[in-house]
Amino acid sequence: MNTRLDPVLSRIDGDLDAALARLMEFLRIPSISTDPAYREDCTRAAEWLCADLRSLGAEAELCPTPGHPMVMGRIGSGAPHLLFYGHYDVQPVDPLDLWDHDPFAPVLEDRPAGTVIRGRGASDDKGQLMTFVEACRAWIAEHGTLPCTITFFFEGEEESGSPSLIPFMEANRDRLSADLALICDTTMVSPGVPSISSQLRGMLKDEFTLSGPSMDLHSGHYGGPALNPLREIAKLIASFHDETGRVTVEGFYEGVHEVPADQLAQWQSCGFDEADYLAHAGMTVSHGEQGYSTLEQQWARPTLEINGLWGGYQGPGTKTVIPAEAHCKITCRLVGDQDPDKIRAALRAHVEARLPVDAKVTWDLHLDGSPAAVMNTARPEFEAARQALSDEWNREAVFAGMGGSIPIAGYFTTILGLDSMLVGYADDDDRIHSPNEKYGLTNYHKGIRSWARILDAVSKG
Amino acid sequence: MNTRLDPVLSRIDGDLDAALARLMEFLRIPSISTDPAYREDCTRAAEWLCADLRSLGAEAELCPTPGHPMVMGRIGSGAPHLLFYGHYDVQPVDPLDLWDHDPFAPVLEDRPAGTVIRGRGASDDKGQLMTFVEACRAWIAEHGTLPCTITFFFEGEEESGSPSLIPFMEANRDRLSADLALICDTTMVSPGVPSISSQLRGMLKDEFTLSGPSMDLHSGHYGGPALNPLREIAKLIASFHDETGRVTVEGFYEGVHEVPADQLAQWQSCGFDEADYLAHAGMTVSHGEQGYSTLEQQWARPTLEINGLWGGYQGPGTKTVIPAEAHCKITCRLVGDQDPDKIRAALRAHVEARLPVDAKVTWDLHLDGSPAAVMNTARPEFEAARQALSDEWNREAVFAGMGGSIPIAGYFTTILGLDSMLVGYADDDDRIHSPNEKYGLTNYHKGIRSWARILDAVSKG
Repeated sequence: MNTRLDPVLSRIDGDLDAALARLMEFLRIPSISTDPAYREDCTRAAEWLCADLRSLGAEAELCPTPGHPMVMGRIGSGAPHLLFYGHYDVQPVDPLDLWDHDPFAPVLEDRPAGTVIRGRGASDDKGQLMTFVEACRAWIAEHGTLPCTITFFFEGEEESGSPSLIPFMEANRDRLSADLALICDTTMVSPGVPSISSQLRGMLKDEFTLSGPSMDLHSGHYGGPALNPLREIAKLIASFHDETGRVTVEGFYEGVHEVPADQLAQWQSCGFDEADYLAHAGMTVSHGEQGYSTLEQQWARPTLEINGLWGGYQGPGTKTVIPAEAHCKITCRLVGDQDPDKIRAALRAHVEARLPVDAKVTWDLHLDGSPAAVMNTARPEFEAARQALSDEWNREAVFAGMGGSIPIAGYFTTILGLDSMLVGYADDDDRIHSPNEKYGLTNYHKGIRSWARILDAVSKG
Repeated sequence: MNTRLDPVLSRIDGDLDAALARLMEFLRIPSISTDPAYREDCTRAAEWLCADLRSLGAEAELCPTPGHPMVMGRIGSGAPHLLFYGHYDVQPVDPLDLWDHDPFAPVLEDRPAGTVIRGRGASDDKGQLMTFVEACRAWIAEHGTLPCTITFFFEGEEESGSPSLIPFMEANRDRLSADLALICDTTMVSPGVPSISSQLRGMLKDEFTLSGPSMDLHSGHYGGPALNPLREIAKLIASFHDETGRVTVEGFYEGVHEVPADQLAQWQSCGFDEADYLAHAGMTVSHGEQGYSTLEQQWARPTLEINGLWGGYQGPGTKTVIPAEAHCKITCRLVGDQDPDKIRAALRAHVEARLPVDAKVTWDLHLDGSPAAVMNTARPEFEAARQALSDEWNREAVFAGMGGSIPIAGYFTTILGLDSMLVGYADDDDRIHSPNEKYGLTNYHKGIRSWARILDAVSKG
């Protein structure tokens, strides 16, 4: 019997329909940050959040940036002071024809594994960030206040490289100071296994255009003598990996460390279902670097992935063209001490060294990158949260690696000197960044309850 | 003094403005055959042509097909009976932003090398086919009739693989019977050098989708273990050629013959300006098969070209996606006795043998292909035309090879038992299939005069 927590949990259960209705309203705003066409929708999503924080009794405001606005809010008193981070922007929705519904007209769907909330952002990250806001709402409704101090910090550029984030943090160190950052943007290692992410991969993004002929050419008049940028870009991409799946860019593995045996043993018993993970993506085997387990490939090995590739004619029928240009978008996931700037330079040098005569390469000017991050799991809040999560999910919570990148965790350390704790309730099959994104209704409900338990656990004593 | 021809030539000179106005009107019809959105425009172009033939006094009609209609017409009497072929459809216009003007609002432009007609189809093939129609118009205006019999045969699917052509020819052998076919859809070997094309490359088209994951994946959650179709399609494309530019598909070179030394010597003196040809396309060297001259690479060597390649995210910004699919459009130019069906089977086997586990390939179902063609230059009409062209251009006319494919020449032989003579007035820098297509006003004018001379020359005796 916990007289402070139990009524909050009961209130959360009783208020679930209203909490769901609020999330649905939030999901209807198409806040795609990477596409300028949705700029006003991003602002609208920020305003919605701001209003919702005010409805809790928080001070809250929109903070303009050269890009999409930040939302900042504060409520509660006493120790600890927690800085909660989430993002209100979402991924683009293409290919739109693969969605069963309008991505921004969210619906509840009954599925064999339980009811899901279907729509863009349901999991990444609107549903996740609302688990925390709703936990706060229930605490305040029940107790009139929170057991600690919360600063809310929401950005709207997470899915587009967070160009405004570092300048904003540097200019607002005081308003962002706290004892610990909480981030809700991660998955559970396996359905129903509560997870605290203890290490994240970093990321760098790059993009180039390979130009050959001075204009599109006719493949009859010029086929043979002409340099074909599509063929050349394919050769370049094929040159990025060797036959074992290892990246061939010189210096790429500098700073990459092997996973210690004890950590590997812990990971192997954390409930990760490899066959299920692969089957979910339609695969029977793991296609990464040979000599590493699927979990290591996902959590502890760096990647160089092509995310977009295009050139020439894509319409119906045939066009006998040798195009003047070909284009390629790349992201690298980084681990250990890999330096994003060095990797970018090495990647560019790799391409430039392989350019044929008459070809030239033009690089994108956006240079964002973030190194990998390892959390400080020795802090007492981690054990308190682990216990709280175990209680809620009736399953031992685990410290897990993560394949994704959450650059903000690194910035909290380097800019604010702040440790981060990452707790999320998403499932690997939530189809985030894909058509038909979903978030389990149970994940939403138990996510809210989990945060209530964590607030209780870290605010004791 | 040629009392039959000279007044026709004078009339052509005097009527040039009107002939140009007619072409401009024709060019305004956006008859893009490969894109279903332009279906009615294709019919409109056919109707325009039909009406224009009737204005000469020809019998003319639209002949429906499952695709775009054929236009057939007849006028004149006596020997020889010539079958004139051209096509009223044009290439797509993308990328539209690289056009200086609306592609279907043709303009006259004064350029350092002379006035040009700028617009889609100006050269390929509306401008070219109108040279012949205008020559006939001048003959008829001057003499009340033609010196021989002409059957006009215009199709509207040349730029989209001519799916209706063979069935139509097979069903209309009688209406298409003649002594010789004339085709006006080719270039001059160099500006001002009148050319009769004596050999054409064949072509086959293919297209495939490479599928990997069962849906688009997040490059954080799945980057590493996931099969990336963009990387796999790049490896496949890179595998099509070896380091010397030779196609590696097994059996690809079956039926390819080396060019005889005497023919090579003739080509080398035909006025082809290699440096100019390369510079026009922004190249300093020839990128084709090592060991062959630029002319051989263009006229006498087969190719395997990628005309379109796409997958993943192409919009602004970044999307950390591993896409489910990648796509590729291919054409091969064929020479000698290469068999399109065999090459297609070999290409597909090459791809299928290299598919990784968990990947699958889906091929396009359109199976059109045509072998290379060699003209019967021993026929007396060839020497008569060569002399007529030399007279008009004040430059010895040449028998040249050609890199492009005009499948109709092969069909005339196999279906109608008819030899073809290909005479065209396009320049290599006409940017056909590219933005800002053009046709020299002089080429149009002298093209009309050339056909008048050829009609005179082949109708004597």
